[in-house]
Amino acid sequence: MPGTPKSLERLAAEFQRLPGIGAKSAARLAYYLLRSPDEDAERLSRAISESRAAVKRCAICNTLTEEDPCEICSDPQRDATLLCVVEEPGNLAAIEKTREYRGRYHVLWGALSPLKGIGPDEIDVEGLVSRITPEVREVVLATNPNVEGEATALYLARRLKPSGVRVTRIAFGLPVGGDIEYADEVTMARSLENRREL
Amino acid sequence: MPGTPKSLERLAAEFQRLPGIGAKSAARLAYYLLRSPDEDAERLSRAISESRAAVKRCAICNTLTEEDPCEICSDPQRDATLLCVVEEPGNLAAIEKTREYRGRYHVLWGALSPLKGIGPDEIDVEGLVSRITPEVREVVLATNPNVEGEATALYLARRLKPSGVRVTRIAFGLPVGGDIEYADEVTMARSLENRREL
Repeated sequence: MPGTPKSLERLAAEFQRLPGIGAKSAARLAYYLLRSPDEDAERLSRAISESRAAVKRCAICNTLTEEDPCEICSDPQRDATLLCVVEEPGNLAAIEKTREYRGRYHVLWGALSPLKGIGPDEIDVEGLVSRITPEVREVVLATNPNVEGEATALYLARRLKPSGVRVTRIAFGLPVGGDIEYADEVTMARSLENRREL
Repeated sequence: MPGTPKSLERLAAEFQRLPGIGAKSAARLAYYLLRSPDEDAERLSRAISESRAAVKRCAICNTLTEEDPCEICSDPQRDATLLCVVEEPGNLAAIEKTREYRGRYHVLWGALSPLKGIGPDEIDVEGLVSRITPEVREVVLATNPNVEGEATALYLARRLKPSGVRVTRIAFGLPVGGDIEYADEVTMARSLENRREL
């Protein structure tokens, strides 16, 4: 394409490989980085390589961490009777932000998806099962509220129940601050179904 | 924040400095890059430094280019009687994509904005004025269709008119494929104002 240097097109193509970045955003990012001061662009490159070098998986819960075991697994204050199962480290971070949960975690690194060829062996089900010691009283299944997350939760519930542990699922309902008028039928139905006594 | 490695937070912070990337997208990009294969992350870092090293500004039209003068300025086939003025190289690329324009360009690197302290000396007005030789018959002002782009176009028209060159502005109206019902009032008003005989 005349008017667009090749190396700029290559940079835009690299950005476009990232999740949620379309052709237009990728071009905008590339133009931006070409215009920004040297130190800005270098800081981004350095942050990429440094974080990749520093971050590994926690041997206990699988989350991304700089120290192994991670901050949460090695914190004696965290409630060892509660285990929260999530698909990805980002989901763990979202739950931590609420400051409501004081238990521990297990990161599956994915969800069951027959369509994508992801079965129980492709995610860390065995690691989770091996962590269900008599000390653990409840496993909170916090996989995503979509088809794959639901399938994973149902599968895990069946796998874990024989051990006698209590297995719970995070609640579905209307998002706080939302409007009933704009809720989709499935969410609204779940919200009615899960109504609570006041 | 427990559950989020520091170097991952730093990487997300670097992404968040880029245009159009909010906190959530930045975190998603950081998690994605940590999980992706070594060669993917390296390719992105390399594309950043390579494009920054290879790309410079064209001494004639100011656009980003790997060879100076750029492909367009050095193309004898391009119509030297037509000069299209844009704010940024990305705008030039958007016009090239239409394959409708066969003239040359001048990149201002910005638009007038008293609020941001950008006056005629902060953008390349002088470079543009010096390019208005008797050979140039028309200057097409293709600054953005917003307040700053309009102000820039009006200012440039006043600066260029004394030289006797024809100065035109790109048309405003309904976007093709759009719906009258969804057009904002200003666009609709401009669309009526600029109506053409069929």
